[in-house]
Amino acid sequence: MKGFVHGGHSGNEGLALKNLMTEHDPSSGEVKIKLKAAGLNHRDLFIPDRHDSSDPDVILGSDGSGVVIEVGPGVKTIKEGDEVVINPGLGWERNASIPPEGFQIVGFPGHGTFAETIVVPEENAILKPASLSFEEAAVVGLAGLTAYRALFTRGQLESGQTVFIPGIGGGVATFLLKFAKAAGARVIVSSRSEAKRNSALELGADMALSDEEEWGEVVANEEVDLVIESVGAATFNRSLSLLKRGGTLVTFGSSTGDSIEFDLRSFFYGQYNLLGSTMGSGEEFRAMIQFVEDHSIKPVIDKSYPLDEIKKAFDYLGKANQFGKLVVSM
Amino acid sequence: MKGFVHGGHSGNEGLALKNLMTEHDPSSGEVKIKLKAAGLNHRDLFIPDRHDSSDPDVILGSDGSGVVIEVGPGVKTIKEGDEVVINPGLGWERNASIPPEGFQIVGFPGHGTFAETIVVPEENAILKPASLSFEEAAVVGLAGLTAYRALFTRGQLESGQTVFIPGIGGGVATFLLKFAKAAGARVIVSSRSEAKRNSALELGADMALSDEEEWGEVVANEEVDLVIESVGAATFNRSLSLLKRGGTLVTFGSSTGDSIEFDLRSFFYGQYNLLGSTMGSGEEFRAMIQFVEDHSIKPVIDKSYPLDEIKKAFDYLGKANQFGKLVVSM
Repeated sequence: MKGFVHGGHSGNEGLALKNLMTEHDPSSGEVKIKLKAAGLNHRDLFIPDRHDSSDPDVILGSDGSGVVIEVGPGVKTIKEGDEVVINPGLGWERNASIPPEGFQIVGFPGHGTFAETIVVPEENAILKPASLSFEEAAVVGLAGLTAYRALFTRGQLESGQTVFIPGIGGGVATFLLKFAKAAGARVIVSSRSEAKRNSALELGADMALSDEEEWGEVVANEEVDLVIESVGAATFNRSLSLLKRGGTLVTFGSSTGDSIEFDLRSFFYGQYNLLGSTMGSGEEFRAMIQFVEDHSIKPVIDKSYPLDEIKKAFDYLGKANQFGKLVVSM
Repeated sequence: MKGFVHGGHSGNEGLALKNLMTEHDPSSGEVKIKLKAAGLNHRDLFIPDRHDSSDPDVILGSDGSGVVIEVGPGVKTIKEGDEVVINPGLGWERNASIPPEGFQIVGFPGHGTFAETIVVPEENAILKPASLSFEEAAVVGLAGLTAYRALFTRGQLESGQTVFIPGIGGGVATFLLKFAKAAGARVIVSSRSEAKRNSALELGADMALSDEEEWGEVVANEEVDLVIESVGAATFNRSLSLLKRGGTLVTFGSSTGDSIEFDLRSFFYGQYNLLGSTMGSGEEFRAMIQFVEDHSIKPVIDKSYPLDEIKKAFDYLGKANQFGKLVVSM
């Protein structure tokens, strides 16, 4: 079968679409899925630097959807022919403050979704909502799960609250926007790009801030209950300054830098909450899929590529100009 | 009556024990208390720099205990002769993430407890537990309330958990130690002073770390669920490094500096919680007093002074060598 792998050479030189000789059969408790589509994530861009190219080739890709074509012994909840979406978190089924020992993400170190088939544990194959096409379902996984945990489990967003999402445009941020609007919140976003600000407003954002302006002056009349931060060093303190006293800032990324300097005294006098978040459990994944179905949420897809052109998708993702998700179809 | 006031001169020069001509009578909903004892807090040391000396004299002091000698119209829950302890938080009765508008602390800008009498709202006079002397009750207020909110409301400490309290010795820290032990937690403390480490071990601390050692190595086998931080810049990152993934750090002070630099990426991958805390509500104050009574907790009192020698108490507190609280008796 075809698969987009890393191996043989270090860095991006080791990326190649190959014809792989071996296909895996499902072991006990596993299912084999014929993939229809797979979603790209920034994580995929980092694997070439993390995977030792002298190790065996690894198929990249964390997100995907498809049809079950074989079930291993003991599989109870899934049958051949089921249309499924893959939960990319391996070994973190129950809700918990952190994942258990041994937690991994599909697509490194184990094989991923940029291939014609994949074998995953039964509990990682979740029935695809009828409201989503295979392409739409394929891009929900990692980003939707990250957004859901950050917004609801960690941020405890409630209807009527105001949430601020700096750096709108990426996959998680567009899910945050759609989820927050579906939950009845008022949503403020920011971006350096006027095009992205306009796209966010079209998707329902109530206010879109330029990264050039002093946010505090612009939103002086807003009561921001929750900030979901993934920009990091470039925006952290400005984001914190928007938050109402007693409010919560959830951080799950730091694309502009990890090192933060901030004032502890204003933080504790303001009785703020700063909460770290990453990924989510299987239970949260199922709740997220249910939420997507209940609210007829359609993921924002920027571009779709055939698997044969996946390198073009990688290049495009690396430029960070997309609004929403990129997807490949098998 | 006698009262220890600030006024007339700026800074510490304006501090004086004076014979005050006027005493206040309780208005509607207020009670007048003949003070038996009053507790000192670091806050008292800062007022001379915050009080404009051209304004009228202000009686300092946030904490106190005494006997009700007069009740104003409409007072329902308190009667003459009641022995009471004062909740120093004015205008924050119900539990909430932040105090309401108009919240103040007894002892600036309004008159405080370093005097022979004080008038406070009825809801700020709480019946003194029989288990505490007037001196003991007088030192519980501000520090006990701050400790209680940080440890239980914010930190959600549970029996069997391990809590780390850097900088043991001050009033709040000794309450944190006693409250945490009473709640069934394992308690680790730290101090630069060997004498304070030994005192903490005598009070029940399970481990006392020197501030000169690398804490991470010492507590490699401990699973620290909660850190209660008031030291600030000098210890913040070391404190955070002790915390188990998914754990909580509550900050309510920064005695060594406000400006913190920390790594956002390790913070969100570790799914940590950083929570600011300050003071507490009237409901928390009552719960704290009940907790003190239920667990027969005795505050740690370092030294007691007669009101006439309160300046000596101020000087001693300024040196930060005390272990526990300082109290003056009327």
